[in-house]
Amino acid sequence: MTRRAQTTLTRLGHEVRVCDLYGEGSGTLPKSSEFQERADESYFQLDIEQTHAFERDLVADDVLAQQRNVDWADLMILQFPLWWFSPPAIIKGWFERVFTRGWGYAPGHKFDRGHKVGKLAMLSLTTGTPAATYAPDGLDGDMLRLLWPVHNGFLRYLGLAVITPFLAYAPRGLDDQGRDEIFNAYDEHLASFDLLPRLFFHSLDEYGADMRLRPEVTPRSGFQFRPANPDPQCRKVSNHA
Amino acid sequence: MTRRAQTTLTRLGHEVRVCDLYGEGSGTLPKSSEFQERADESYFQLDIEQTHAFERDLVADDVLAQQRNVDWADLMILQFPLWWFSPPAIIKGWFERVFTRGWGYAPGHKFDRGHKVGKLAMLSLTTGTPAATYAPDGLDGDMLRLLWPVHNGFLRYLGLAVITPFLAYAPRGLDDQGRDEIFNAYDEHLASFDLLPRLFFHSLDEYGADMRLRPEVTPRSGFQFRPANPDPQCRKVSNHA
Repeated sequence: MTRRAQTTLTRLGHEVRVCDLYGEGSGTLPKSSEFQERADESYFQLDIEQTHAFERDLVADDVLAQQRNVDWADLMILQFPLWWFSPPAIIKGWFERVFTRGWGYAPGHKFDRGHKVGKLAMLSLTTGTPAATYAPDGLDGDMLRLLWPVHNGFLRYLGLAVITPFLAYAPRGLDDQGRDEIFNAYDEHLASFDLLPRLFFHSLDEYGADMRLRPEVTPRSGFQFRPANPDPQCRKVSNHA
Repeated sequence: MTRRAQTTLTRLGHEVRVCDLYGEGSGTLPKSSEFQERADESYFQLDIEQTHAFERDLVADDVLAQQRNVDWADLMILQFPLWWFSPPAIIKGWFERVFTRGWGYAPGHKFDRGHKVGKLAMLSLTTGTPAATYAPDGLDGDMLRLLWPVHNGFLRYLGLAVITPFLAYAPRGLDDQGRDEIFNAYDEHLASFDLLPRLFFHSLDEYGADMRLRPEVTPRSGFQFRPANPDPQCRKVSNHA
């Protein structure tokens, strides 16, 4: 899928950079040892150390290289297989390392006030099970609800506009013809990426000071809802508050 | 939080084992190089290689040690900070390595027919932002919906019964008294873990052959819903099917 995107987008006149997390060694987990000068030697907090390193130009070279790629791109595509209902750890670890506090986001610079406003992102997924399991009443649950933590929590959080994802269901069981159909559909998706629907997210202006939607705003993200009409399991759960 | 759970559960007469993923070196990503004898040298597929290793007793020692701990425990608690709306990559990577195809699940052995039926699991989370941001109409979205990929996709998938999670919101900003309140609430949670509500999941018997809920079954997991009344963003998205 990655090679197909590279070929198709290049043919369409775009410049493409491919970051293979397995190949480049950047697919690692954040570690305290990568911070050469610590803000707090006694207690490691990733976001504190990331801010410290960012402000002092002490960010690791491989992280800087990834950040330059992200800054360079108008559209960032994340290609991955859905594992355990979510992106593989190698994708998550890359996010944790690269989209640092300071560079990726900062207080007051999140969501539609984020640093990456004006740029696009898109997920392209393969799954192990057929589309029906990701139906709203499917065993795994609705695909867009499943992807909310990624769409809203990774991409929108940074300020990116999010294009409707490309979903290749259960390609492993397909023959060459079935796979060609996926590739051709992906070509079409890529060719029209600037025309495709973008996911809807509420603007920060629509939230009150408590970061809940103002009473006059009707939730329409497809994930959020009014607690006046809660789903059975979505009531307040145990917590200290 | 981990030490508190260890102390409290021990005081209550339970035996406790703590697996610190940072400390034990098991917090790593799955890699092709950990499979000494490959099922397919030309194309790496994690689940295929995991099955191959499992069937031939070739599973890496550190993975075996983690699996023995999981088998030993009646209750597995995952303690983590919510990062980017989801578990840290180190937790995800541990899951990908330890809960292997063959040992953790297998065709026909998933969800309420899973290998771990009869055992319990519970999430214990800390967050960076207050509870209101995780309200159903909050900026981040309802906490139980956010956790569905973990509750249903990690834990229930294995067959585990899932206890209502313990949620410690924004502890970083609290003083000692505020933190003590969390610890005391956690003590109560732990003391009553076998009495706490368990999350509801539909039985596999309630799904049709296409793995969608049978027409006569009303969705009540709090995540799944009837596509006849779709949320604006939960319609079928672009795909080849």
